[in-house]
Amino acid sequence: MIYFDNSATTRPLDEVIALVTETMRDVFGNASSLHALGLDAERKIKAAAQTIAGTLPCTPASLVFTSGGTESINTAIRGYLEANPRKGKHLITSAGDHPAVREPARALASRGYETTFLPLDSNGCVDPDRLADAIRPDTALISLNHVNNETGAIHDPEQIASIRNRIRPETAIHMDCVQSFGKLATDTVTARCELASISAHKIHGPKGVGALFVRPGVRIAPLLYGGGQQRGLRPGTENTALIEGFALAAVRMAASREQNTVSVRRVRNALLAGLEGRADFRILSPADGYPGILSIAFPGIPSEVMVHAMEREGVCLSAGSACSSRKKKNSPVLRAMGVDEATAGCAVRFSFCMNNTVEEAEEAVQATLRVLGRYVIRRK
Amino acid sequence: MIYFDNSATTRPLDEVIALVTETMRDVFGNASSLHALGLDAERKIKAAAQTIAGTLPCTPASLVFTSGGTESINTAIRGYLEANPRKGKHLITSAGDHPAVREPARALASRGYETTFLPLDSNGCVDPDRLADAIRPDTALISLNHVNNETGAIHDPEQIASIRNRIRPETAIHMDCVQSFGKLATDTVTARCELASISAHKIHGPKGVGALFVRPGVRIAPLLYGGGQQRGLRPGTENTALIEGFALAAVRMAASREQNTVSVRRVRNALLAGLEGRADFRILSPADGYPGILSIAFPGIPSEVMVHAMEREGVCLSAGSACSSRKKKNSPVLRAMGVDEATAGCAVRFSFCMNNTVEEAEEAVQATLRVLGRYVIRRK
Repeated sequence: MIYFDNSATTRPLDEVIALVTETMRDVFGNASSLHALGLDAERKIKAAAQTIAGTLPCTPASLVFTSGGTESINTAIRGYLEANPRKGKHLITSAGDHPAVREPARALASRGYETTFLPLDSNGCVDPDRLADAIRPDTALISLNHVNNETGAIHDPEQIASIRNRIRPETAIHMDCVQSFGKLATDTVTARCELASISAHKIHGPKGVGALFVRPGVRIAPLLYGGGQQRGLRPGTENTALIEGFALAAVRMAASREQNTVSVRRVRNALLAGLEGRADFRILSPADGYPGILSIAFPGIPSEVMVHAMEREGVCLSAGSACSSRKKKNSPVLRAMGVDEATAGCAVRFSFCMNNTVEEAEEAVQATLRVLGRYVIRRK
Repeated sequence: MIYFDNSATTRPLDEVIALVTETMRDVFGNASSLHALGLDAERKIKAAAQTIAGTLPCTPASLVFTSGGTESINTAIRGYLEANPRKGKHLITSAGDHPAVREPARALASRGYETTFLPLDSNGCVDPDRLADAIRPDTALISLNHVNNETGAIHDPEQIASIRNRIRPETAIHMDCVQSFGKLATDTVTARCELASISAHKIHGPKGVGALFVRPGVRIAPLLYGGGQQRGLRPGTENTALIEGFALAAVRMAASREQNTVSVRRVRNALLAGLEGRADFRILSPADGYPGILSIAFPGIPSEVMVHAMEREGVCLSAGSACSSRKKKNSPVLRAMGVDEATAGCAVRFSFCMNNTVEEAEEAVQATLRVLGRYVIRRK
């Protein structure tokens, strides 16, 4: 199986699996317990926070562990708005942000909040002038992804922050870094933004754990209420094993960040070079995006047909993002970019990780050509 | 180490750890992905839901997987109230329920909800007449624990439901079954109540996963918004490995439920028999509660001192519940029962699991007597 669906989820590193296993067995105490088993768990969690904080970077105290990206993002958006009612009742995001951003924003309408969903330009990004124009005196929060999960388009935190600083410094910025953490430098995010969401399972860590960066001094309300864990911002028995696995994955990704970029770019280029001149396709990802995510449309072949046909060839792809792939609608990301529906309906996403090889790309090219050949013949 | 803190958390079964490990490695796909790895994960999750549903029992479609007990309970309470605004803005719980119930109830005050926190009787339960009196024409929800996490006191779902049915059938009932699931029969809960919360790590399953039972036809609003997983009631990439571990733990507990009760009762009785006549202590747990939880006060020895001294003797106990044990206040459960502050300040909780032995109880008796001896000498 060639796994080119790394933006949906990644295979956990063997050493991450080993650490999770070991911690489940040996450090099973409740981190809130007063006895040695509890303190042991608490120490591991603190060390993991320190490790992850080092890779963002930020202070460990500015991290809140959650159950994953969706919870981090929901907490960022709803928690910030709830804790800062005087900042305004207006929110800005893009029509191409993740459902974990768009859906909470929509749900907030019933509580009197209004959201501007900015379109994306043909490069998959929000136009800076449009962003500037959208900021109002009651804009409490701007939430944008760092790397788009379907196209790899990159929003520059520096640029977004300077627009905000110029127009309304009181407006907070949340960056959804679920797809960028461990792959791009996030130092400008934590230096310039108030909130950032990250997740473990997109970087070869375990599923079920993520974190929210909250800049010191920024107030958020918790989404859950209970036993007071995570400074009251995220109660519930802490998941020592997954948190440790997250930290190990984060440190491994940080150590190989440049190598990862070089490697996924090489795989991407091999794929594109192999298809060039031999297949009818259109690249929907921007040239300057994160090279690990490549959205391509094969005109005339519906996304789902392509995904299933490629799967039978042993290649795992995605039609849009996994998070919305079970919905039969076309990708909102591509629609937000102004891609016509016919093309969007034929888009598939190849997403690479450092363990993917040029050989796999070449095999995937052959598989693609076989599928295209069969499909074209069948349609004649 | 003698681990008598099984109500805080349990050691995962070896076979649960093995299954989690195997699933992390072999079924790492995103259950929302269209390709084989995704479908494989989805199938495992469906099978796990079926397994857990069989043990409650309920239909698989009435289960929503969450990140644990705290999230299940928060979703039950806030999700039910939000989705059923016409049922009223009054909530009933007890002053001795878990913080994951009490704190969301308190937080709801800012949205115009009012909560009645009923006291507990000396047996650790809500008085049926008081409950009946507390139900008002605007009572939307009653939330009570099935088994109290500090004393083991049992609320009878049958009795609570018949009081509700008599006074106001429109009122919904949520039972916090985090401490009862797998240990007591929960068939009357799912037969008579609208909502029930369960968690994996209290039954030798992994931390970071739980579920909410929502009776078919009962509407709840999600706490998180996003990619539509779990029928939109709990979005976020599903944690296949933990969900599978949860199901395995549930089925093992279900298979040994009677044996578990016999076993923890034997350990409890051995402990009490050993202390009887040789130590000054007062049992705070009711005689007819779940025998796996035993709250005892050793007059004159503060809870924390006792926990730390026992830990040095190799016995893990808890001062109150783990979830609130880092707070220096006395147990709200014991206060709700009317236990005087001096006694409550000296309470510790022994909580047993099926793997604990009579020999461990006898060793713990010796440890307790040594600690008491030293402490009495030091105070002279």
